[in-house]
Amino acid sequence: MNWFQEKLYEHHKQILSMESVLYHWRTEFQDVLIFENATFGKVLVLDGIVQLTERDNHIYHEMIAHVPLMAHGSARDVLIIGGGDGGTLKEVLKHPVESATLVELDGEVIDLSRRFLPEVSGGAFDDPRANVLVMDGTRYVTETEAMFDVIIIDSTDPMGPGEPLFTPAFYRACRRRLRPGGRIVVQSGAPFFQPDELAMVRERLSGSFAEVRPYLAPVPTYAGGMLALVAAGESRDALRPSTDVLRERFGVLQSRTRYYTPEVHRAAFTLAPSFEPSSLREDPMPTRFLKTGS
Amino acid sequence: MNWFQEKLYEHHKQILSMESVLYHWRTEFQDVLIFENATFGKVLVLDGIVQLTERDNHIYHEMIAHVPLMAHGSARDVLIIGGGDGGTLKEVLKHPVESATLVELDGEVIDLSRRFLPEVSGGAFDDPRANVLVMDGTRYVTETEAMFDVIIIDSTDPMGPGEPLFTPAFYRACRRRLRPGGRIVVQSGAPFFQPDELAMVRERLSGSFAEVRPYLAPVPTYAGGMLALVAAGESRDALRPSTDVLRERFGVLQSRTRYYTPEVHRAAFTLAPSFEPSSLREDPMPTRFLKTGS
Repeated sequence: MNWFQEKLYEHHKQILSMESVLYHWRTEFQDVLIFENATFGKVLVLDGIVQLTERDNHIYHEMIAHVPLMAHGSARDVLIIGGGDGGTLKEVLKHPVESATLVELDGEVIDLSRRFLPEVSGGAFDDPRANVLVMDGTRYVTETEAMFDVIIIDSTDPMGPGEPLFTPAFYRACRRRLRPGGRIVVQSGAPFFQPDELAMVRERLSGSFAEVRPYLAPVPTYAGGMLALVAAGESRDALRPSTDVLRERFGVLQSRTRYYTPEVHRAAFTLAPSFEPSSLREDPMPTRFLKTGS
Repeated sequence: MNWFQEKLYEHHKQILSMESVLYHWRTEFQDVLIFENATFGKVLVLDGIVQLTERDNHIYHEMIAHVPLMAHGSARDVLIIGGGDGGTLKEVLKHPVESATLVELDGEVIDLSRRFLPEVSGGAFDDPRANVLVMDGTRYVTETEAMFDVIIIDSTDPMGPGEPLFTPAFYRACRRRLRPGGRIVVQSGAPFFQPDELAMVRERLSGSFAEVRPYLAPVPTYAGGMLALVAAGESRDALRPSTDVLRERFGVLQSRTRYYTPEVHRAAFTLAPSFEPSSLREDPMPTRFLKTGS
C-alpha cells in the first residue's frame, strides 16, 4: 500500500493510505495532490498539508459559512477569499443571497476541484449568483468598490500563498468593504498545534472590529481534530444570537445541513479555559508565523 | 529519530516521535509502552493504542468525572472501573465525596503510572478516601454489596481486556449497584472512526437506564480528535442540569479545572446531526466489536 505522510508538525504526523492517486502536479503557486483513501474518500492536499476530504469537509464548510450568515440574518452580498474548492460557496448559496463573490489566487485549484471533487462544490460554480475571480485576494479587497454583508477568509495557513491574508492591513481593508452590521470570519488553524495562529488572528482582528470571538469546528481530518475559526463584528451580540433567533432563521437551511444547527452554533462558541490561547501557548510550537506582517 | 506508529485503524494512522522510551514491557494482560514526545509530553500506550498523554489527558479525565458528578450534585460514593492511571480518580476526589473505589484489572498499570506518570494521578492514590482494588471489574460489580451514586467506566476500547465491560449484563449489574438518582458514564470511543462503539453503548445502556445521552470531549491525542462518552441516569434531566444549577455547584471545583466549566458541560451534549450514529455509520469501519456479548 502507498502512504501519504503529512508534513505539518515536527513531532506528530498523520499518515493516510493512498488507495489511488488521482492527480499530482505543481501549479504556479503550490503542489497539488488528490488521492483516494478508504476512510476519508477523496483527499485534497496542498503543499503537503491536507486541505479537505470528501467525508468531513462539510463540517468545516458549514461552520465557516452558516455561522456568520445566520448571525447576520439578512446578508445580500457575500465575499469569499480563497475557498477554491467551492465548498464554502456551496454553503453560502444555500442562503437567499443576491451574490457570492469568490476570489481565489490559484485558478488551477478551482479547475482541479471541479474535475476531481465535484461533490464538494455541488454545482455552486454554475449558480448565476456566483461571481468567481482568479486573482490575489489582498489586491481585490484593496481595489474593489463593492460592499459586502459577510466576508469569509477561507484560506490556507499563514505560510506560502496564504500568508498575506493574515495581516492587520488586510483585515483593515476587509473592514472597509463591509456594510454596517457586517461580519467577517477567518480560518485560524488547529488551536492545539497552532495556538499562535489563533492568538494572532484574534489580536489582529481586534484592531478593526469591536467584537471578536473564536469558535470551534471538529474536523477529524485536521491533525488534533479541532479547527478554530474567528468571527468578528461590530457589536457584542453580533456573532451569537439567541437560540430562538437562530431557530427562526434556520427555516431557510432546515434539512440542508448535516453539521450546523442553531444549537451547534451556540455551543461552538463555548471554549474551555484550556483552549484559550494563554493556556495553549505553554507548548513548544513553532512561532514562525508570528513574524508575518505586524 | 524513533517513531511510534499507532495500530488502531487500517487506513489512517498517527505517528509520534519518541524522544525517549521510558518503559516497554508486557504485563500479564497487555503490552505497555511509555515514551516521551516533544509535543505531548509523556505518552502511555496499551497494546499499541495511545491511552493518554501528559498534555491533554486532563480534558478526558475532567469530562468523564465532572459531568456525572456535577449532574448528580451530592454524590457520596463513586465507583471507577478501569482508570488505572489515576487521572479520573484525581478528578473525582476534587469533589467532597466520602469514598472513591477504583477497580483495575491490571495492577501493573497502576504501578507503572504512579512511577512514570505521577502528575496524572497527582497523589490521588494516597488520598484516604481512595479505595483501590486490583481485580476484574465485572466480577467486582456482580459480587459487591456496596452502593454508589456515580459509576464511571474508564476502560479501553471493547477489544482485549476491555471487552467484558461493554456487555448488557455488565450494565445491568452496574444499574443494581446505583442508589436512586445514580448516574453512570461510559467511555465510548472515537465517534468518527468507531461509530459502532458509540451506537452499541447507547443501545445497550438503554436496556437499563431511562435516560441515555452521549457527549463529546475533544482530545487531540485520540486520532480523529474527538472522544465520545455516554452518560445515563433515571430521569430526563439527570445529565444536563441548567447552567444556573451547574454554576451553583461549580463552587467546589472553581479554578481547579482546566477544561470543564458549567458552560462546557452543557455544550458537550450538543451533538451535530452528522455526529449521530445513523450518519456516522455510512462509513466502511470494522464492526468486529458488534459481535461482543449481545
